[in-house]
Amino acid sequence: MNKVILLNKRPEGIPTPEDFKFIEEEKPVATDGQILLKTLYVSVDPYLRGRMSDAKSYIPPFELNKPIQSALVAEVQDSKNPDFKTGDFVTGMLEWKLFQTSTGKGLTKVDGEKASLSAYLGVLGMTGLTAYFGLKEIGHPKAGETLFVSGAAGAVGSVAGQIGKIMGCRVIGAAGSDEKVNLLRSKFGYDAAINYKTTHDLTKDIAAIAPDGIDVYFDNVGGDISDAVLANINRLGRVPLCGSISSYNDKEVATGPRVQTVMVKKSVLMQGFIVSNYAAQFPEGIAQLSKWFSEGKLTHSETIVEGFEQIPQAFIDLFAGKNEGKMVVKI
Amino acid sequence: MNKVILLNKRPEGIPTPEDFKFIEEEKPVATDGQILLKTLYVSVDPYLRGRMSDAKSYIPPFELNKPIQSALVAEVQDSKNPDFKTGDFVTGMLEWKLFQTSTGKGLTKVDGEKASLSAYLGVLGMTGLTAYFGLKEIGHPKAGETLFVSGAAGAVGSVAGQIGKIMGCRVIGAAGSDEKVNLLRSKFGYDAAINYKTTHDLTKDIAAIAPDGIDVYFDNVGGDISDAVLANINRLGRVPLCGSISSYNDKEVATGPRVQTVMVKKSVLMQGFIVSNYAAQFPEGIAQLSKWFSEGKLTHSETIVEGFEQIPQAFIDLFAGKNEGKMVVKI
Repeated sequence: MNKVILLNKRPEGIPTPEDFKFIEEEKPVATDGQILLKTLYVSVDPYLRGRMSDAKSYIPPFELNKPIQSALVAEVQDSKNPDFKTGDFVTGMLEWKLFQTSTGKGLTKVDGEKASLSAYLGVLGMTGLTAYFGLKEIGHPKAGETLFVSGAAGAVGSVAGQIGKIMGCRVIGAAGSDEKVNLLRSKFGYDAAINYKTTHDLTKDIAAIAPDGIDVYFDNVGGDISDAVLANINRLGRVPLCGSISSYNDKEVATGPRVQTVMVKKSVLMQGFIVSNYAAQFPEGIAQLSKWFSEGKLTHSETIVEGFEQIPQAFIDLFAGKNEGKMVVKI
Repeated sequence: MNKVILLNKRPEGIPTPEDFKFIEEEKPVATDGQILLKTLYVSVDPYLRGRMSDAKSYIPPFELNKPIQSALVAEVQDSKNPDFKTGDFVTGMLEWKLFQTSTGKGLTKVDGEKASLSAYLGVLGMTGLTAYFGLKEIGHPKAGETLFVSGAAGAVGSVAGQIGKIMGCRVIGAAGSDEKVNLLRSKFGYDAAINYKTTHDLTKDIAAIAPDGIDVYFDNVGGDISDAVLANINRLGRVPLCGSISSYNDKEVATGPRVQTVMVKKSVLMQGFIVSNYAAQFPEGIAQLSKWFSEGKLTHSETIVEGFEQIPQAFIDLFAGKNEGKMVVKI
């Protein structure tokens, strides 16, 4: 039998297990031109929350009672497509199923000997590319500048900080626990880090650890943390807006200090992006990330949860910050 | 005797006449290397409000009991500098005085036959350059796109809208009176315009006159109008932030809907700027504006108030929107 996870209802606020439904169905069979895939690793990502709403966004919403999709690593179990053979590993946007068939379109073969298979969902996949292009194409960090990363211990943040170091920046990060803050310094090479949950005055504390101000702010979270960083931004600062996880579960648009005044005063650039904006440059990005990875300049961090049944909870746990680095479910 | 206007105290909220002080002093005399200037036109601009506060900004604050400075057109009355002769007209950052001496540094000679002298404070001066560089370097308007301009009948806005038309955009503007709205269509060639003070639902009304959404938003005002425009922004939209006059008099940072979520969802770029960021390109900008002006493609609008004593009130009136186009005081 096959197992499948459907969107049962659209979440209100923070997603709950009831928003998902498990069903069983016949195991599919590959027909001519198709391959049969066995799921090995499933990526759960904050952006999926957006697709669970029916609000207009950059990608169409998931349909109710249809399987949820995300990035997966799978193994080819049977092939009736000459481009793939049994035992190949592939990655791509696929459905939350134990088994599924595919024409192979949109899938990329990956090499489990160059890196662990799960890395292709993280540092060598969309996560790494998101950090790389956001920082390079919008942040334009220059050696000697100060980079601040929010959600710094998260999947994208931990890569963004390391790339900032490779590019010669002084790198500061904010995360939500002392454990994560320690990791930022010990594992990811951050120069300084701050636990935003225990600080009493984030604006002042950032000023203290960033005495020269912030030149580039890689923003994964939005909300209060962003207010405090923007209060410390330098003239001609750049803010790649990668996500605003702090507001994904809001039922109404959150309010906060208006950013326009400080942006005019200091000629600040802020730009939202999704990684697919840079799809034409993916080969360059993957090559660069793989090179740094093989040279040992990029480390990665994963929270690996085991079991197909754990996928919804792993996703829900993202919003409580229970992951450190990329959250992946191993099947 | 000479007359001078000093900053008497730092305004709280909207400036009042008491924030300024008139004094009389001896008329100055040009010494070696100097020129004696007689003020002809004085530019009053919203950004001066920022310099009246002692908050950190992109230019140093005015000092208390010192003359206020802004862009002026003046006539050389006496010259002990070989680069200038009596009767020359010049423009530059000068003090609010009837007469003053200068070494000539930072001054530009202007030709009163090619355009009215006051135009060098507006469409052919900093105002025109602000519209030109903000739109071109940040807005990147493409033919067929929709440009929205707030403060559309103001000094910068009226030029930005016309440049948008020259570049092939559909141009829509918001202004604060029916009279201004009519002018946008009849004089400045806007395709559609909206009176933001009489609308009941600005977001819906913008959607109605911009059915294809907004690609470029030239933002002169910030505040509620910007919220409504951002609710109608297209994917990959660009927002040059030229000013936020709606908040210049706020004693605390105003709050409003956070912009980050929509900016991430739609990959929107927002960039604050001041015209001096583009100083290296001023010759190109002045040449382009002068060419369009001489070809009749750019019209300009001025509110000219007469009398040295009227300078403070003309400045104060900017915040009530009493100007149409560039506000200039003729001495």
